[in-house]
Order: sequence, then structure tokens, then C-alpha cells
Amino acid sequence: MRVINKNIYIKSGLMKNKVLLNTLMRLDNTVIITDNLVPNVYVENLRAIFHNKEIEVIKLSAGEDNKNLLAIEAIVANLLCCKLDRFSTIIALGGGVVGDLTGFAAAIYMRGINWIQIPTTLIAQVDSAYGGKTGCNYRGKKNVLGAFHFPKLVLVDPEYLKTLSNREYTAGLAEVVKYGMACDKDFFEWIETNKISIKNRDSLMLQKLVISCCEIKMRFVTLDPLDQKERMVLNFGHSFGHALEAATSFSHYLHGEAVAIGMLLAARLAVRIGMLERDILGRLQNLLEYFELPTECLLINVLCDYISCDKKNYGNILNLILPYALGKVKVVSEISIKSLEGLLQSYVE
Amino acid sequence: MRVINKNIYIKSGLMKNKVLLNTLMRLDNTVIITDNLVPNVYVENLRAIFHNKEIEVIKLSAGEDNKNLLAIEAIVANLLCCKLDRFSTIIALGGGVVGDLTGFAAAIYMRGINWIQIPTTLIAQVDSAYGGKTGCNYRGKKNVLGAFHFPKLVLVDPEYLKTLSNREYTAGLAEVVKYGMACDKDFFEWIETNKISIKNRDSLMLQKLVISCCEIKMRFVTLDPLDQKERMVLNFGHSFGHALEAATSFSHYLHGEAVAIGMLLAARLAVRIGMLERDILGRLQNLLEYFELPTECLLINVLCDYISCDKKNYGNILNLILPYALGKVKVVSEISIKSLEGLLQSYVE
Repeated sequence: MRVINKNIYIKSGLMKNKVLLNTLMRLDNTVIITDNLVPNVYVENLRAIFHNKEIEVIKLSAGEDNKNLLAIEAIVANLLCCKLDRFSTIIALGGGVVGDLTGFAAAIYMRGINWIQIPTTLIAQVDSAYGGKTGCNYRGKKNVLGAFHFPKLVLVDPEYLKTLSNREYTAGLAEVVKYGMACDKDFFEWIETNKISIKNRDSLMLQKLVISCCEIKMRFVTLDPLDQKERMVLNFGHSFGHALEAATSFSHYLHGEAVAIGMLLAARLAVRIGMLERDILGRLQNLLEYFELPTECLLINVLCDYISCDKKNYGNILNLILPYALGKVKVVSEISIKSLEGLLQSYVE
Repeated sequence: MRVINKNIYIKSGLMKNKVLLNTLMRLDNTVIITDNLVPNVYVENLRAIFHNKEIEVIKLSAGEDNKNLLAIEAIVANLLCCKLDRFSTIIALGGGVVGDLTGFAAAIYMRGINWIQIPTTLIAQVDSAYGGKTGCNYRGKKNVLGAFHFPKLVLVDPEYLKTLSNREYTAGLAEVVKYGMACDKDFFEWIETNKISIKNRDSLMLQKLVISCCEIKMRFVTLDPLDQKERMVLNFGHSFGHALEAATSFSHYLHGEAVAIGMLLAARLAVRIGMLERDILGRLQNLLEYFELPTECLLINVLCDYISCDKKNYGNILNLILPYALGKVKVVSEISIKSLEGLLQSYVE
């Protein structure tokens, strides 16, 4: 088993190891928060860890369009009903949406209680389960409410990835490619070399993939937990991606799909302004296409309205994360909304 | 001027010192959050600090019964409309309710932005403006949602206290007495000695009072910012006080009034179980009566239902803060809900 730091455990089959789980999670009174996409057997296996105890399960509606304040209220109302106190711990069993909502509820219930993440999707296992970002969408704006609230424990079983739908799995691969493109040339080339077995979800490959992504992410999170400097490179593809999700009411694209398109837009923009070689854009596009991720952008002509509300901006200055080499991106603040509009418009024409 | 630490400035007339305020608050884009009890002239004077700039003012409805999620939503919706970003700072100008709500909104907007507290009531100047506790009530439970989110700056002008209604001023004195009773015998005796000029709101006395309370509070907050050990003594009177506020739908008592009654209930309980000398209870009661604080408890027979939901509890164990000497309190965990019910019932009969 790989223990990335004292809080993160990754191993195929981990969630079947009752003895270990029982040692790691000594909880008096807890609640499991999950959604209707998580297989029931995972929920029941988790409840079985706490034998002799009646554990409440809160089942949320899946999907980014349900990541809102109503869901947060539903969770905290349930925690109150279950009489959870300041010393209680709650458990998120699910993908990115379940994790973001549970973490945010944990951050504000009784001014903050502990929580545990058990990610079940690829995107959660390689990205959202680490790094303490929690939150929800509000008034059509992505993650505009939330908190940095790190889970006390993250338990990752890559075997869970075998039961994901193709679409869910593929969406997660966008974040995997992001790590290579934004921060690690060697990892990008490793993905290129192993793309067949990655697509086939070979067990050993899944575990290696998850561990590598987690290690890359934690390198940046440790340097800059509050996402103000070094960590910002991990937002590559996300300004455009979030704008695209918002423009389509969080109901058309999965997050990873929007990030795939976002990375391509950022890379094309970088080529256009002479920052990136066209050949690297080509390698990015090839990899995304091989994984069957979407690469064409809907609603490109309205994206600017949404990008101007991005959390990374400072006043009227856009902070775009653009690539300048394989495995290298930087924050570019020189592009005005006006000129970005022009650049995006040229794709439409 | 007294600078308690690099963030807290206390001085009579501080809010008239435009040059200093301008140096302390260099803000590009901000919003002032206040309520309908704060004199308009304070709001206009504050806006004038940021000359040449259009500063939005959000005016909330005053009162603990408006300290709810709806108010939080109203604030964050306004921050979005004003296009505030992750690097913006917002300002709370008002009493405890305005501070708690503004701080909570700042804690969750874009995963946390900076905020400044300018407390206008006695209770805010001696207590709630320091220590980073923010939040709102939810489903009839006091402060059950919230966050620890320390203001970047606290600006305290005791001259503001001159325009408070007698009822508002008196309510704040309950927290002043609390510091003496719970943590500082000398301070309690100083209040007894100076009670006349305290009641008369003499300028020098007000400044001294506010500085002393702030210094006592910050001693405990520094030791234990997250209120898990040493800081808990400051909750003396608050288990009963919060229960009483909740039982009366947050609309009958001001917070300080409920705390006054809560301190008396706690002290009477301590006498009853042989922990405290009756003479000290008498001195507490005399002081509260001199300040014309309420000392009789409404709805005492339902308080237990509310106390069992207190944030300080652990599972079914009540954590009550009880006095055992002048200036000394401790956490008592041996009293069950059942026996507390009996003790409270005996007051009713």
C-alpha cells in the first residue's frame, strides 16, 4: 500500500480490508454521504465496517447541477437530526461532487468538524479528493462558495474504477493528462506510452496512475495549500473548463470533459500568441482524442462572460494558465478580456 | 492608542482619524456590511475614507432572529454583483450580528476572503469582534453553522458606545462582568469599584473597559484559537444563555441579557452542588442587578431540550462551564441531562 502522507492511503482492494479500515476509522457516531451513482454494494460494505452501529446514509442526487446550497442545507439538516457534535466525523463516499459538498458541510457545521474522503470515481481519485478544496456552485458560478478544509483521512481503492461507466472513467483521464501537460513532462510521456493499458483499466496500471497523480498534486498542495502561487498551475484548463460548465448550466459536460476542452483552448491560445510550439498542441490533442474526450467547444462565443468571473482573476485582470512547453505552464496576466474575446471569436469563424 | 496585536486598534475617536484609517485600509474594491441600527453618520464617515470611490453598502435587518442563512445568501449574492474577487476585503460595521454574518460570508466567499471588523456595540467591542468566531443560527439552533475566520483588522472606537440605546449598552455589560467572573478576580473587583462611571459611560472609563476586555479575551484566544481547551472558560453563561435565546426564537432577549441569566443559572447550579460559595453568587447577582440586567429566567422548564444540542457537548455528555471561585470557572462533565432537568425544575417550583 502506498501511504502518500499520514492521511492518504492508496491500494487496490483497500476497501475490502475490514481490519485495516476498522483501525483507521474509529468513529463513535458518523454519517455516510453518497449519491445515487455509487454502487449500493460499496455503501453496504462501508456500513459493515461499523458493525453493531446504525449508520445513517445521506444519498444526494448525482451531478454537477446538484452541487448547490440546497444540497449543503440538506446535509447539515441531516447532521443536526443525527445529533452529530463538534467532535464527530463524517464520510464522503463518491465522486467529486459528493466530496466537494461533504467537505463544505464539514467545514461549516459547528464551525468545522472532521471528515473522511473515500473517492469512487477517477476524477476524485486522481484530483478532487486531495488538496482540501470544498464548495458548491452558486447562481451559475462554479465553486464560488466554499472553504479550504482538508479531510482527516483519504482512503483510495483503485478497484472501484472498474465499475465506472466509460464516460465517467474517460472524463477522469482529462485530469490525468493535465498533470502531464501542466507539471510533468515524464509523466505525459508515460501516459503516451501506456495509453492502451490505461484505456483498458488494467489493475496494476490503475493503481500506478492514481499514485502518480496524487504524488504530483500533493507536491504542489504542500508548497501552496491555499492556491495562491505554485498550486495555480494545477488550474490549467480550468478557467475555460469552468466557464464552459457554467455556460451550459452544469448539465451538459462532466467536469473532466470541460477540462479537456479547456486545456485545448488554452494550448491553442498559447500557440496563437507564439508561446507554445504547435507540435506540443498536437500531442495534447492526439492523447485527448485517443481517450475519446470531447475536443470541440460549444458556446465559445459566450465563454468570455463567464471567464471574467473566474476566481483566479484579480480585478479586471485575467489570470490565465497557459502552456509554454511540455510539462510547463505559467500564469499569464497580459491578455485582456477584449483581446481574449477576439481570439475566441476567431475559432468560431 | 492601544494596539493589542498587529490587527487590533482601540482608541476613542479612532474613527475620526481619516489619515490613519486611510493608511490602515488600502482597499481597491470593497463592500460595507451594516444594519439598520447603526447610525447613518457612521456609515457615511466610513464611506468618506474611500473618497473618489463608489462603495456599496449592504444594510441587513438588525437582530439575532435575522442571523440566518438567508442573510448569508443576501451578502454573498451582493458580493458577486459587486464583482468582488478572491483578493477583495469586506468590512463589517455594526454589532455582533453584523460581525458574525459578515465574517461567515467572508469565510465562504471564493473559499475565503479578507475582512475588517468595525464594532459599534459594547458587546462587539468587548467580545464578538475578537477571536474569529463567525456564523449564523439554523433551524432554531444558535451558531450551528459557521467558521473560524479571523478578521485581518479590527478597528475599535469606544466613542461609538455613546450613541447606543440603554438596553444595547446594558446587554454588553453582561459580557464585561463575565470576564471578571470567569477569568479575572481583579477585573471583577475593578468593575465593582467603578460601576457608577461604567454605567454613566464616561469616555476614559469606556476606553479602559474595552481595552481590558479585549486583552483578557485575546489571552485565551491566543492559547486556544479553536475553542477546544483553555478558551472554553469564555463560554461561561453561554450554554444556558444560548438555550434561552433559542427557546425564545432569538427574538425576546438580546444576547447579553441571555448571558446574564445564563451566568446566574450556572452560578446557582454551582452553589447547589457545593462547588461555589453562596457569597460569590450574591456579588454576581448584585452587579448584574445594579446594571439593570434581567436576572429571572423565562421558559426554564424547556431549557434542557436546547442545552442538549449545545456545541460544547460531546455525545450525551454535557459540558457545563461552572464557577468555583471568583474569577475561576471550569468545565464540568459529570452532570447528566436528567439531573440538570431536576435542578432546573426546582427553580420553577
